[in-house]
Amino acid sequence: NPHLEKMKEDILYHFALGTGTHDFPALFGDVKFVCVGGSPSRMKAFIAYIAEELGLGSPTGDYPNICAGTDRYAMYKVGPVLSVSHGMGIPSISIMLHELIKLLHHAKCSNITIIRIGTSGGIGLEPGSVVITRQSVDATFKPQFEQVVLGKTVIRSTNLDEQLAQELMQCSKEINQFNTVIGNTMCTLDFYEGQGRLDGAICLYNEEEKLQYLKEAYDSGVRNIEMESSVFAAMCNLSGVKGK
Amino acid sequence: NPHLEKMKEDILYHFALGTGTHDFPALFGDVKFVCVGGSPSRMKAFIAYIAEELGLGSPTGDYPNICAGTDRYAMYKVGPVLSVSHGMGIPSISIMLHELIKLLHHAKCSNITIIRIGTSGGIGLEPGSVVITRQSVDATFKPQFEQVVLGKTVIRSTNLDEQLAQELMQCSKEINQFNTVIGNTMCTLDFYEGQGRLDGAICLYNEEEKLQYLKEAYDSGVRNIEMESSVFAAMCNLSGVKGK
Repeated sequence: NPHLEKMKEDILYHFALGTGTHDFPALFGDVKFVCVGGSPSRMKAFIAYIAEELGLGSPTGDYPNICAGTDRYAMYKVGPVLSVSHGMGIPSISIMLHELIKLLHHAKCSNITIIRIGTSGGIGLEPGSVVITRQSVDATFKPQFEQVVLGKTVIRSTNLDEQLAQELMQCSKEINQFNTVIGNTMCTLDFYEGQGRLDGAICLYNEEEKLQYLKEAYDSGVRNIEMESSVFAAMCNLSGVKGK
Repeated sequence: NPHLEKMKEDILYHFALGTGTHDFPALFGDVKFVCVGGSPSRMKAFIAYIAEELGLGSPTGDYPNICAGTDRYAMYKVGPVLSVSHGMGIPSISIMLHELIKLLHHAKCSNITIIRIGTSGGIGLEPGSVVITRQSVDATFKPQFEQVVLGKTVIRSTNLDEQLAQELMQCSKEINQFNTVIGNTMCTLDFYEGQGRLDGAICLYNEEEKLQYLKEAYDSGVRNIEMESSVFAAMCNLSGVKGK
């Protein structure tokens, strides 16, 4: 975004951080991996786990929330790993990714890998399986993200990094603790009606129609359903960050 | 939703509440007003303010979070008023409203008024003005909410209660402390590109194009922009709850 160069100061409102108040290269210059997920408490648990795995801290250590000045998002850091919460749904993760990508830009980070982790509804898989997303598809199974910019519909690609998928698959084989597949992930704007659930406040279809829809999803290559992957994939593509 | 009657137990996953574990009529049967807003801490401050205004508690009192079992949403109650956070964006508030409407249904509440309060970007208004929403419009200024259900696009009306708008306008005149207008509210799926901002991570338009878009919005009756009103209006209409 060429407009950023003209700004005296860049304030990342929803992180409660800014280039005028924080030294981004000193705070974040060494970041190489970013893991994002919905819930603040899970992202805190994740950083404690990573700290122990990397030998950089104990699981019971104190990991301060870098975004303590706001309750929009939570952010934690250990060595080269940043762990950030994004809330639920495309708009919420979109705001976070705009500010995260600017943060990494201001901090002059390079060769960044971003991974989104989270629970999702599996289709035709045993419970507890892990799906590595090849492409994110919309609720009509198309590998694209539609967005309205200045009143006009813009369509963006939602492919994810194939090499990273293979590397993650290889890791899973070595660990050999859970069923892992590479497949497409369907990203919906709604948890109840959008995913064909029968137990929302509003439901105008029956179980048979629901099962038919999920079967069509499976036949098109969809293996799980969640609510953030499409804009995640689109923004990684546009900003040149390797995402999964 | 007729499917709910067949369920032995209804679990409101994202509230960490359920009909099998909580007595909804006893806990929520007296609720008449629900105020919803994005941030958990603001909704806590709001309930403390309401408690004092209604003479039911002090502003420094202890108001426990009814949804303490999860970090998805926060919920507070004082007398007939419920205050619930909904996060950012249409998907996040949609999940909350599904579970809130079911909660009110299980608690056998009647004559409920729901009001969404929040900050928003004004168009052509002095800063600090309050906009009471007549209709929520999409990013092309149409008064509708498009949703994909089982792969098919469904369009829902986003009108809000006109009598409630007039009552709120009357209250504002009596208080006489801030500029208040009734107007349309534009609801977008994105904070940066979706609202024509120049300071996101990605921006493929210039300032002139941005101003042209905002002028078109103003000319169509839009007075502010936010990210939740359209699904809020659509779900209030569908569930027969009076919303604003």
